[in-house]
Order: sequence, then structure tokens, then C-alpha cells
Amino acid sequence: MRTVTFLIMIYGIALFSSCAFKEKEEISDPIDKKVAELMSKMTLEEKIGQMTQITITALEKSGSPGVLDKEKLREAIHKYKIGSILNVPNPGAPTPQRWYEVLSEILEETNKTDNKIPVIYGIDAIHGASYTAGAILFPQQIGMAATWDPELVEKCTAVSAYETRASSIPWVFSPDLDLPRNPAWSRLWESFGEDSYLSSEMGVAMVKGFQGDDIGDANKVAACIKHYIGYGSPTTGKDRTPSIIPERVLRQYDLPIYEKSVEAGAKSVMISSGEINGTPVHASKRIITDILKGELNFKGFVVTDWKDIIYLHTRHKVAATMREAVKKSVMAGIDMSMVPEDYTFYEELFSLVSDGEIPMSRIDDAVRRILRVKYELDLFRTPVTNPEDYPDFGTASSSALAYIAASESITLLKNKENVLPLSKEKKVLVTGPTANSMKHLNGGWSYTWQGEKSDQYAKDNLNIKQAFEKKLGQENVLYAPGVSIFEEIDIAKSVALAKQADYIVLCLGEHNYTETPGDIDDLVITEPQVKLAEALSKLNKPIILVLNEGRPRIISQFEKDMDGVLQCYLPGNEGAKALVDVVYGDVNPSGKLPYNYPRYTSALQKYNRKYTESLGDSEQNDDADYQRSYNPQWEFGFGLSYTTFEYKNLSFDKVFFKKGDAVKVSVDVQNTGERKGKEVVQLYLTDLYASITPEVKSLKRFSKIELQPGEVKTVSFTINVDDLKFVDENNQWVAESGEFEISVGNLVKKIVLEKEI
Amino acid sequence: MRTVTFLIMIYGIALFSSCAFKEKEEISDPIDKKVAELMSKMTLEEKIGQMTQITITALEKSGSPGVLDKEKLREAIHKYKIGSILNVPNPGAPTPQRWYEVLSEILEETNKTDNKIPVIYGIDAIHGASYTAGAILFPQQIGMAATWDPELVEKCTAVSAYETRASSIPWVFSPDLDLPRNPAWSRLWESFGEDSYLSSEMGVAMVKGFQGDDIGDANKVAACIKHYIGYGSPTTGKDRTPSIIPERVLRQYDLPIYEKSVEAGAKSVMISSGEINGTPVHASKRIITDILKGELNFKGFVVTDWKDIIYLHTRHKVAATMREAVKKSVMAGIDMSMVPEDYTFYEELFSLVSDGEIPMSRIDDAVRRILRVKYELDLFRTPVTNPEDYPDFGTASSSALAYIAASESITLLKNKENVLPLSKEKKVLVTGPTANSMKHLNGGWSYTWQGEKSDQYAKDNLNIKQAFEKKLGQENVLYAPGVSIFEEIDIAKSVALAKQADYIVLCLGEHNYTETPGDIDDLVITEPQVKLAEALSKLNKPIILVLNEGRPRIISQFEKDMDGVLQCYLPGNEGAKALVDVVYGDVNPSGKLPYNYPRYTSALQKYNRKYTESLGDSEQNDDADYQRSYNPQWEFGFGLSYTTFEYKNLSFDKVFFKKGDAVKVSVDVQNTGERKGKEVVQLYLTDLYASITPEVKSLKRFSKIELQPGEVKTVSFTINVDDLKFVDENNQWVAESGEFEISVGNLVKKIVLEKEI
Repeated sequence: MRTVTFLIMIYGIALFSSCAFKEKEEISDPIDKKVAELMSKMTLEEKIGQMTQITITALEKSGSPGVLDKEKLREAIHKYKIGSILNVPNPGAPTPQRWYEVLSEILEETNKTDNKIPVIYGIDAIHGASYTAGAILFPQQIGMAATWDPELVEKCTAVSAYETRASSIPWVFSPDLDLPRNPAWSRLWESFGEDSYLSSEMGVAMVKGFQGDDIGDANKVAACIKHYIGYGSPTTGKDRTPSIIPERVLRQYDLPIYEKSVEAGAKSVMISSGEINGTPVHASKRIITDILKGELNFKGFVVTDWKDIIYLHTRHKVAATMREAVKKSVMAGIDMSMVPEDYTFYEELFSLVSDGEIPMSRIDDAVRRILRVKYELDLFRTPVTNPEDYPDFGTASSSALAYIAASESITLLKNKENVLPLSKEKKVLVTGPTANSMKHLNGGWSYTWQGEKSDQYAKDNLNIKQAFEKKLGQENVLYAPGVSIFEEIDIAKSVALAKQADYIVLCLGEHNYTETPGDIDDLVITEPQVKLAEALSKLNKPIILVLNEGRPRIISQFEKDMDGVLQCYLPGNEGAKALVDVVYGDVNPSGKLPYNYPRYTSALQKYNRKYTESLGDSEQNDDADYQRSYNPQWEFGFGLSYTTFEYKNLSFDKVFFKKGDAVKVSVDVQNTGERKGKEVVQLYLTDLYASITPEVKSLKRFSKIELQPGEVKTVSFTINVDDLKFVDENNQWVAESGEFEISVGNLVKKIVLEKEI
Repeated sequence: MRTVTFLIMIYGIALFSSCAFKEKEEISDPIDKKVAELMSKMTLEEKIGQMTQITITALEKSGSPGVLDKEKLREAIHKYKIGSILNVPNPGAPTPQRWYEVLSEILEETNKTDNKIPVIYGIDAIHGASYTAGAILFPQQIGMAATWDPELVEKCTAVSAYETRASSIPWVFSPDLDLPRNPAWSRLWESFGEDSYLSSEMGVAMVKGFQGDDIGDANKVAACIKHYIGYGSPTTGKDRTPSIIPERVLRQYDLPIYEKSVEAGAKSVMISSGEINGTPVHASKRIITDILKGELNFKGFVVTDWKDIIYLHTRHKVAATMREAVKKSVMAGIDMSMVPEDYTFYEELFSLVSDGEIPMSRIDDAVRRILRVKYELDLFRTPVTNPEDYPDFGTASSSALAYIAASESITLLKNKENVLPLSKEKKVLVTGPTANSMKHLNGGWSYTWQGEKSDQYAKDNLNIKQAFEKKLGQENVLYAPGVSIFEEIDIAKSVALAKQADYIVLCLGEHNYTETPGDIDDLVITEPQVKLAEALSKLNKPIILVLNEGRPRIISQFEKDMDGVLQCYLPGNEGAKALVDVVYGDVNPSGKLPYNYPRYTSALQKYNRKYTESLGDSEQNDDADYQRSYNPQWEFGFGLSYTTFEYKNLSFDKVFFKKGDAVKVSVDVQNTGERKGKEVVQLYLTDLYASITPEVKSLKRFSKIELQPGEVKTVSFTINVDDLKFVDENNQWVAESGEFEISVGNLVKKIVLEKEI
């Protein structure tokens, strides 16, 4: 045995030397120079420490939540030389000042080490500095997607960056670039919805908002795009269960979202906890090293998700030991392990490198990537930022931005006989389980993981009931919950109160959740809520259904009895105010659905379905009476306004074009109603025939514009050959000659890509 | 233009010559010799005609259903030289004599041609000669799978072959080898359920039953395995909508089912109407030519499904013209086109070959394959069989076999406090929409496509109500339907009658359907049926739920209130008799579920799920109260008996083994109850760790045995290295060393595959 190890070590050293030799090339980039200089002074232990990330709660004194155990901290910093810490000290949501104290305490220890390498602290700040007391909480990503306004998203994200830095933290695990394929998935709301193009545009906006032009700026943070890749597509809809995504499909729909954010400079990538076609992503060299670091040329560092190296052994069972799990994942291209509670990773990795089973070149690559980001963040000079330097934390102007985002996201799905906006002179009953709590407006990742403490931390914000009371005066607002999400309370009381009201505002939706605790067995909205809706429907009073939910819960059983439907998603701390302004017409709604809202549990088709999923009458079989049931409750891109818009003059600067050409598309949009309003002009492409079955349509461009009553604006887009491409059977992007339809609003025209000669 | 065509033709001729040259090799097989001789005399028109299949209804006189139009027939045979006809003349289900007349009329015309090549007539005889009046109708395939008895299946299929040949037809579009992944799929019942191994064993049994050792035997027919491949897995569950199946997954689960039936000698293959990962199978050279004809070495011929070449153009839109569709599909490897209503295929193909766009070698390959089967079927000497030579058509002994198959398939899913078997002395209410009709027992593909005429054609068989009346005497059976499948009729009446009865037999299920007309939007059993069940539940009378359904419709809303549950599937014409004998204990039930019966709409996991789909408590996250919800209503392989069985002494002849070794597994099974009964001994394998995430368990062997009370039998199985293999990331079958668990009944033991040195 000894001999074998010895031989391997010799072999290992030989390997390392040749790699080290290669690195002697001229380094021109100043940061690369600093990194190389520092690395030349680092021991193997220090390097492996850089790859190790611990949760702060593992460093707390047992029995004293929130208090760091000096001994554990010393062990982490001096014995294990850890490079990163994440998460929030107990009991959650510290003030900026408290964050500053915690990070300063850590800094004190790292300053005692030889190389004084600062830890990089990471946090799930996903809709604002969501783990900081007093921070502005914006709509969750699904709501941001519904604004169809990337500039607005970038502005909001810049506030998140600022407030995160005001909490001394330089690194956020955001944005989420998942592409959910099953709407039951518990994290759908953390994504930008079902469309790859919309998601990629929004992802870039968030990366820019977080990082700006230079993450050395102390108002900026390093972004972490996640969860690379395929995490949003578990077949059954349950979180962290297997995905089935052929490479062709992965490349066409999932990968471009990451590609755009990598091009935009995202500094880190978090790997999916899922498995694709039987391969856990944490174990896939092809996906991490070949595609992400190779093809996409990603230069930042790759971090695991929570415990995921351990899970290769205990859950996915692709590694018979923890040692094998560490080897597989590091060799696949993992640079940093979110350990997060013990040092097995550190110890196994040290042993694997010592035994020559992992080459030093792989370790150096990982550490170089991590240190580069630490230098880029200027952490060596400014390892901790001080809340005193952030006077704009939690200010009214930032709150106003959160209000605008919520206003722009709220989506009017139904407005029978223009029941909305309501008159402020009438009495309303506000009822339903989501009406009287901030939890439902914020959802998960708000102050705590599951978001159960929003009512405590956001007590100064208005929930829906309070916002109605503020708008109308308490005397004009009746309230009874009727039911909770999971249980009946007193439906009869709601019914009785409804009889005294002119309008019923029925607030339904979901509890706060994320990840596996949010798994559901049935996409239909919970039974008590159905009962409440059905009971109120019998009164023949106008009902405004307010949906306040992370994913589109099926409501087709009672939707026909609703007069108005407003989808709020998870609109954040200013959501209720925005909602009430929409209800009373102080804001004209302009949000558009970022997903198909399903009507039935076995009919979960996407808007960009294939033709075989929605055949025309001519393709029905005459022998039977049936319909192909593409029939969502509401379609992707849909949303009403209190005004009306008309599309005219769709025109192209050319109809026939060749590779290399671009087509300029323009269209006139007029506000034909009597109120100022915003419209999302959406351009869809249809490939009439292709070697891979084409989609009925796919989104290629969009632009949100504001129009005064009567005003006409001309909106222009440029379409080039890349927009006509799809991934073919050989996993290559190709454009095939032939006819394409471009549609904007209700207008459609053809273009022709000519054959190359 | 002319010049280009001319050049292509020269090039084409050069190509053909070199191919023709190759074929001059010595031919030793006598059938191949005959084929070559015949082909040397055939024109291109005749060859293309062989590749053309027309529906018989296209040859009927307009306005006179069932009467052939001489002129149309002459055109088909003499002008288009068609090689095959399918389907059933109007108005459906002819007698054997009528079939004989129709086929003789066709023969009369082919006999007038130069080469007198008989047409090969094909029919959807999928559970007996299901398009022939008076034929024995067996349980549908899903019920056959539930018998877990391949020998029985083979015997029943031999009767189907005999009765099909008694109807003069030599070719059946059966068995169905689809592997359904979404239980909502409308053709689940035409498959053998969710397990690849069970399906492959049953598929082989049916191929053997149809074909015997020699399809030249006039009691045998040529089988057509379908629908190659991936047809059973539309993502949304809707028929003929896109499937997503990575090649690794396709090779591990779908392909082996076909491979086994090809090895067993299946003479023809029908191609899936679906698309996999964006490629319609009819357009996939890789799937048809490279894998089926190449890797699997399939020597028979490949036929399309209904209209599917046309659909490449009109539905899938991978071909901009019909001509392109013909070219794509023939070059992909299609040998025969189920046209089925016009001659565009013939004309386009003729033109494509003439223009040199399809080489003659491809045409010759197709025609050779078709003619070989015609010779093997001895059609040149016996082009039509005469019902006079089939005295055993529709006899009692065949009916008895159908009864046995139904008895062995019926699956006892629940038997609270041994409510079953019922006492014959008590009064029963038979209620529910499926109780009083043969349609529900037979389902689709029975006498007609959708099976709506079972009550007319099978009027001499007993439906459920009649079978109860026969058993107990009419005076002891109360009946009211309560509801139809889709509408309430009179639930109050059922409730009132129930009060007079000792037991309620509640017959729920589905209407008759197949293909797209069977699409559903919700897997939950229809609303009126839920209401009937809930109304009867309030009476506190014992309820026996009889399920009579093609797919497992969700019943979890009221299952807890049922005392007994019997799954009948679609048991055919003898199903009701078998059911009633099970209910009264004259038959001890022994069927086992061939699928997971789901409990919830968003929880459709298979039994052979991955570990991440059903984590143990230790792998839960401590921070939240949740469960990973693998919790089917009933699991694959489950089924109760009126007796009990005990498993003992699981033993292996070795624990450590190497590649090439086999392990002999034996186990003792004892009937520990007081009735004779049958048990399906099931052997499952668990790979503890593997480079592709292993399944929690997978079926590797099974054996159905009968035991007298107290009797013990030793059951032996042999497991070899092939059984430990899975398809790896490179799409190769591999066995990886390490530990495996073998479980039989409640017993589990480990084996170890040793590392190769």
C-alpha cells in the first residue's frame, strides 16, 4: 500500500511541476499579477481553505444564538483557513450595524493570518438585502419579470447592491436564472418565468444592477448566477428531484440565459442541486468545465449549493464515499464548496491532493478564480464596509422604487364589464387568507429562509387590508379572513359581511415558502380557498380576485364567477400599496404574465409549444369529436390595461435577407383609450418549417412604452440571423433558409431567409 | 433547370449501378432467392406500389359503406400497384365470412397483375381479432400485464392469431411496446405499464403468440411491434404531442423492450407518430436506420402510422412540402407508408426516385423487406385464408381462456377487515356508470376504433350488472347508474337503493376511447363519479369499489371511505364474469399493478424512482417540517390475495462475483392462509452507488406460482452481470463494481460485483 501511494505522489508531483512551469508565462493583467504573487506564498492548506465555505451558524456559541464562538472562529480561520462564510446569524435579519460587527469580528481573525486574505461573505439577497432588518424588499423575481422592464429591474437591483454593501456583505447569491418547466415547482417565483429570452434579458439587468461597471466600487456586489443548470425543471415539479433535459434542449433554452449573464460579467456561478438525465450537475465535468468554463469562457468562480458535495454521496449516490464525492465534484470543476457545517471537504480534498488524485493545477485554477474576485471586489483594501458610509440605506426614495416595481408588475388578467377600477365611494369587503399579512406579499427569503417573520420585520409596511383602510378610511373597509391557506376559519362570516359591501376583494394565494418545504402535490389552489370563493360567488356581488402567489395555482373551478382578477405575484413590502392604487385606478396596470397560467392540472403546456400541441381544426381527425387542448387560463405575455392600444403599420426594411443581414422592424402603437397607459410591445417569431419541429411562436424582442391618450409611438426592433437560429440534432445553432412570420400585437408579416449559394 | 436535373439523374444512375452491382453476391436463403427473382422482374412503379398502404374505406363506393368500388379497387391495384391494405370496411366488425369476401375480392384483382403479388392486409387486432364480429375479446394489454403471466399471454395471443387468420387477415398491428411516462396518456391501457422489464417479457410473449415458430403456418400472423419509439411518453400526457427523452434514457428503458421483440423475430415495426426532442421519429434516420435496422439488426419491414408522412409536413412542420416529407421519411428508413387515403406518397416517391433524389438501393431495401415477409407468410400460395378452415373460431374453450386472463388480471387493491369475498346470501346494490355496459369492459379498438359498439356486438356477453344478477339471482341485485361518466343522472336514487342493500358495489371508471379522443385535462376521476362515491360513503354501508378504467384515475378524495377496491382494467368480454367470481371468492385474485397508482395530480413518480425522489428522514432538512412525497396510492407490483404468503430463506449460491459469473437466487414462498392462491414472486435489484444516479429499485425477474394452503415452493432465479448494467453518460451499457441489494418479498440481501484487475 505504502509503495503505491508513494508512486502516485511522485507521479503527482511530476504533473504539478509541468503545470507550474506553464504558468510562468507573462501575466499582464494587474489583478492576475497580484493573484499570482499571493498564490506563490500560499501553502496547500491555505489554498484548500480558500475553496471552503462555512455557514456562520456553525461558528455560533452553542446555546447562544447569534453570538460567535471565538474558538470555533479561530479554528475556521487559522486551522482550516477558510475562504468564505455565508448565511445569517441567528435569529435572522440583523441590522446593518449588527452585520458590521459580525463581519468585523471575522476580519479581526483573518488579519492575524500571514497572508491576511479576507473571507468573501455571501448572502441570499434575492429581492433586496432580504436578510437585513430595515432593507427595502422589492417584488420577487417573477414579479420583476412581469414588469417587462429591464431598466427598472437594474435600478432596483442597484439598490439591493447598495443595501447589501451597507450590511457589509460583498457577494449575493442572485440572480436566479432557472427556467421552470413545471409550474408546480416551489421556486418558480424565484425565476423570471418560462421564457428563455425574457429570462436572459432580466438576468443581465440584475447582473448589471448588482455589479455595475466595477465591483471594486463599494456600492456594488459580486453576483452569483444560479442554479447552473437545469435546476428549474424537475420532472415531477418537486424541488431537487431529477430533471430530464436532452442536451439539444438544454442548449436551446437553458444555456443562453447563463451565456448572456456570463457575457455581462457575472463573477460567480452556483451549481444546480439537481441531476440531469441521471448525472448530478455537481459531478458533471462536461457541464461545469467543458461548457461553462470552456465554451462560455466563464472566468469567475463556481460554488456549490448547500451541502451538495455531501449529497453526491448521501442522496444522489454517485459516490460511494465522501472522498469520492469530493474528488468527483472538484474534478468536475467546482471551485468552492458550500460545505457548510463541517470540515470533511477540507480534509478529504487535502488528502486527495496529497495522494496525487487531484492535480495541483485544478486547485490552483480554483483558488486563482476565487482570489481574482476578492481582488476585483477590492476586499484586500476594503474587507468590510461600514454602514455609516451608507446614508441612503432604507430611505423613502428606495421604497418609492420598490413601489414602482410592484405597480409595474401587477397584472390585470380579467376585467369583466370594466368593473375595475373601483369607485372610492363604495364599501368593500376585504377577505381571504392573504389579506392581512406581509408574509404572503414577500414570500420566502425574506428576513428568514421561509419568510415567516415578515409581519415582525416589515410591520411598518402596509398589508392589503391596511392599504385598503388607508385608501378608503377604516369605516369603508370590512374584513374577515374566511379561511387560512390550509384551513377553514369562518366562511359564513365573510359571506355575511359581503352582504353589507358593494364589492368583494377576495385575496387568495399561497403561504410563504421556498425550496423543498414549498413542494405541493396538487397545483389546484387549496380547498378552503376554493370553498370561500364558491360561497362568495353565490351572492351576485362583484368580486375582485387578488392573487398573491409564487406560482400559478389553478383556479378554473371558480374563475368564471370572478369579475376582476389581479395577479400580484410576490410584490414585496410596497406591494399592497401598489395593488390598492391599481384597484382604484391611481395606477394603470401594465404587468404581463411571464408564464402560461394553466387551467387544468394535466394541461401544463408552455406558450412556445410545438404545432402538434395545438392543432387547427383542419388537422383534427374527422372520426371523433375532440379538441387538442391548448387552452391555458391566460397566456404568457397577457395583461390588460385600463386603456386600449392599437397596432398599425407593421413594416420591415426588407423581406428577403441573407446571412449577415439584419431586418429593421417597426410598428406604430396608439393609445386609443382615455387614460395614460403603458404597453409592452412584444415581437414573436414563427419559423414555418425547420429540421427540428418549430415552435408556434417565440419571443424575440420587447419594449415597454408609455402613451398618453391618443398618442402614437413608432417602436423599432432589429432582427438578425441569430434570432432565426435554433439548436439542431447535432447540438449546433443553425439558421435554415425559408419563410418566417414576425408578429407584433395582432399584426403578422413574413420574412424570407434566402438560401446560400 | 433541365441541365441540373439531368446531371442529378446521371449521378443517380451511377449510384444505383454501384449498389445493384453489390447485390450480385450469392444468395443462399430460399426466401431471399425468391424475393430477388421477383424483384428482378418488377418495375419501379411496382416497387413503389409495394411501399404503399391504403385504407379499405378509401376503396368503398361513395354512399355505400362497406361496398367496394370496383373502379377504385382496380385503380389501386393496377394503376398504383399497392402492396398493402389496412383497416375495416364500414360499418365495422365484419363476420369472418364477410372478411373472406372482401379479401377475396381484392385477391381477384391482384391475380390479374403480371407478378400476382398479393397485398398484405393489416388490422388493429389488439386484444383478440377485435375488428371481427364474434371474435373472442381478451383483456386489453394493461390487464394482460397485470396477470404477470407471459405463458398465459402467449396462449391468449395464439387465439387472437387464429381468429385473425379466420378473418382472412395475416398481419396485426400488435403488440404495443410503448412505455408510458405520464399516466394521463390516453393509450396507457394499450401498453404493458410503466416497467421496461415487465413490458419486454410480455411483448415477447405476444410476438410468440402471434407468430409461433413459423408465420407460414396459416394459424399464425405477422406481428407489428409499435410504436417505435418513445410514443408513450408525451410530456403533457396528450396523445401525439412531443416527448422529451434523452438518448441515454431511451436506451435504458425504451429500447430494450423493442430489442427483445426484435430478437424474438417480430416481422414488422410501426413507427411512433410522436416527436422526440424535436425530431419526429418518422424523419429520424438515426432512430430507424441506424438503431433499429443497424444496431438491433431488424430484418423485417417498417411501416408508418396513419398519415404520418403527410403529418411531417402539416403537423410537425419539418418538411416544407409533401415531397420533402416523403424524401425525409423514406431516407430515414420507412419501408411502407400508411398513406392512407390518396396516392400523393406514390407519386412523390416515384418522382423522387426518377429525379435521383432517392437512390434505387433504398427502394430495393424496402421492397425486399416487405416481400420477404409476404413469402414468409406464404401469401403467394395462400393469399387468403378461408373461415371454413377455422372451426375453432369463437368457441367456448377460447372464451374460457379470456375468462382466465381476466381472472388473473383483476387486482385486489384494498380489503379492509377482509370485507371480500362477499357472502352470496346478501343483497347488493350495483351502481355507477360502468356497471351496465360492455363498452367500459372492452374500451377502444373493440369492433370499432373508439369501441362504442361493444353493447351491440358483445350483447351475448355479460356486463357487470348482468353478471351479478346471474350469480345472485335478479331479486338480490339492485341497480341504478347514479351518474354517467360525465353527467349526474340520479344520485339520490342510488343512495335510496343502497339503504335496502347489504353491500354497495360501486362501479367507476372511464368511457371507451383511444388515441387523441381519449385526451384528458385532469387525471382525477370525473366529478359526477366523485359525487356518487361521496354520497354513498355517508351511509356507512360496506362499499366495494370496482375500477374499470384504461388509466389510473385519481380517487384519493374518497378512497379512504371504500372498504374494498378491485381494479379490473379493461378486462374484455369475459371480464364481468371473472370480476363477480373474484367478488364472491370463486376466484382468488392474483393480479398485480403494472404501474404506480397515483394519489395526487402533481405526484406522478414511477416505482423505479431515484433516491432524491424519496428521501429518508435523515436526509430531511431540520429547519422545516416537510416530507418528500413519494406516496403513491398503490405501488407497482402491488395486489392482495384472499390468502397470505410468507417469504423465507432468501439465499444466493455466491455473494462475490465477477463479470461472466451468474448468481443463483432462491427463496421459499409459503401459503400461510387457508385458501389456494397465486403469488407473483418479484425480484428487485438496487444498485447502491453508480456513476448514473441509481434507482431505488428495479424489477429484474418475476414468477407467478400457485400454492395450496400451507404449501411451500422454492423459487429460483439466475441473475447475471447484464442485469446489473445501466446506460452510462456515453450511452453505453456498463456494469460497475460494488454492492447491490437483491430483494424478494420482504427479504433483502447484498451481492458484490468485484473489480476487474
